[in-house]
Amino acid sequence: MDGRAAYIAVDWGTTNRRAFAVSGSGAVLDSLQDGRGILSLAPGDYPAEIADLRARLGPHPVIAVGMVGSNRGWLSAPYIAAPATLAALAKACVEPAPDVRIVPGVALRDGQRPDVMRGEEVQVFGAIEAGSAPPTALFCQPGTHNKWIETVDGAITDFTTVMTGEIFALLRAQGILAGMLDGEVGNGAAFRAGVGRGLASRNLAATLFEVRSGLLLDRLAPDDAASYASGILIGADVGTRDDLQGRPVHLLGGGPLAALYAAAIAQAGGTAVIVPDGSTTSGIHAIWSLRT
Amino acid sequence: MDGRAAYIAVDWGTTNRRAFAVSGSGAVLDSLQDGRGILSLAPGDYPAEIADLRARLGPHPVIAVGMVGSNRGWLSAPYIAAPATLAALAKACVEPAPDVRIVPGVALRDGQRPDVMRGEEVQVFGAIEAGSAPPTALFCQPGTHNKWIETVDGAITDFTTVMTGEIFALLRAQGILAGMLDGEVGNGAAFRAGVGRGLASRNLAATLFEVRSGLLLDRLAPDDAASYASGILIGADVGTRDDLQGRPVHLLGGGPLAALYAAAIAQAGGTAVIVPDGSTTSGIHAIWSLRT
Repeated sequence: MDGRAAYIAVDWGTTNRRAFAVSGSGAVLDSLQDGRGILSLAPGDYPAEIADLRARLGPHPVIAVGMVGSNRGWLSAPYIAAPATLAALAKACVEPAPDVRIVPGVALRDGQRPDVMRGEEVQVFGAIEAGSAPPTALFCQPGTHNKWIETVDGAITDFTTVMTGEIFALLRAQGILAGMLDGEVGNGAAFRAGVGRGLASRNLAATLFEVRSGLLLDRLAPDDAASYASGILIGADVGTRDDLQGRPVHLLGGGPLAALYAAAIAQAGGTAVIVPDGSTTSGIHAIWSLRT
Repeated sequence: MDGRAAYIAVDWGTTNRRAFAVSGSGAVLDSLQDGRGILSLAPGDYPAEIADLRARLGPHPVIAVGMVGSNRGWLSAPYIAAPATLAALAKACVEPAPDVRIVPGVALRDGQRPDVMRGEEVQVFGAIEAGSAPPTALFCQPGTHNKWIETVDGAITDFTTVMTGEIFALLRAQGILAGMLDGEVGNGAAFRAGVGRGLASRNLAATLFEVRSGLLLDRLAPDDAASYASGILIGADVGTRDDLQGRPVHLLGGGPLAALYAAAIAQAGGTAVIVPDGSTTSGIHAIWSLRT
């Protein structure tokens, strides 16, 4: 491991930003994390933000991934089409300023259904590059929008974005279930019961109403409602995967939500494997190494 | 038709209230409609509200249905269990004040899943009493919460509440689709395309994200997004009914939403029959006639 930074890697999301000073061999030498995500910035703010990052982490080239490359960020870096390889992604980087590269996202453009991602693809490639997952694998990245991502021989071939977390947040904030879902979501009996209902559900918008009717009819305890509703949503999502048997699901990202997904995947008969942290910087380093 | 009112029928909902002066033979002689639903009233307000209704429609007995009998209304009229007959409903009315009856709702209490309704049951019984639907039938009442209701020999045997309209409203107000769903929802090509996607969808929370990805990838026109999203939600609901072939669906309630459901039911291979207005007053009159 050498001791000199070669570039700055930035994971630039909607609400948060993480930046890393990285050596030429991929070692993270320094890092920072703050709330300067794209929602807090206007397009004209980015040159000053880059100067600030360089003042803090060193006068190096910058390579950035995530929503910074969307039409709400610095500039729109056009999606590359799936099947998408690491090499294609590296080749499609855009340069909004000298020595600044923005990595584009990946799109399902011509298939039966459209879908897009921006940032998760770098994590997936990084996990494969780091040896944390095989080149042909199924990934799951829980979040406000869960992503299921399939790779074949190192290329992203298919993926699905699921608004699980967002729908939970909307139901908690407003509407007939508001005030019922404020409890902590835990991975206990109520969550597992919800997952069971979700796995068996064919009509999510109907099954969710069982939270209210279950409370009214004393079949659900108020303290269990949030966990039960979360279980319904995650179970309904996991239940649509017919491909969970016989191969592991590689879970990207840790924290409580990943633990809930891991439990639901297990309840559905699958096996979840947590991918260690560092996939994003591994992926950025692989793209950096392929720069032309 | 006699010219003297015998009682006042009130359809007392969450945000609106309709009241009718009805003759002993069931003829509606006078009516009013206002915004004094239960959300605008405290429990102590109801005696004065009854006095006001009598001042406007005559000094008659009152029979009220709907959310007025919920724990957010005047008082909670306990649900009767399905299978539920008109006679059982009439017998279970509660009397919060002299010559005032509140009709309870119906619950699925002991089955595989819980569900509740309060008001729709009177419309169903009224439609059957009026001869607008046969005693064994499938009903659909679109609204913020759509209800599918099955009757056998005049008794309500099963029903399902679906949060279709509410989820659409939540998505329109907040979150990643906010600002994309403000257009008018029409029953055109975009709606039908959405119904097609919804009917084929196994994962509603994933299919809804196609609104955003379709817009980003120029596969969906901005003006079509609201109709397309509505089509997905209604199609996903209608698609869960395996029993649409070979018998009509009796649609309760008119208006644009009923027209959308009728179109989606037709697209799924079923036949929707619009039940004429007046089912609620027919149902209340049947309950009035059974009073003891």
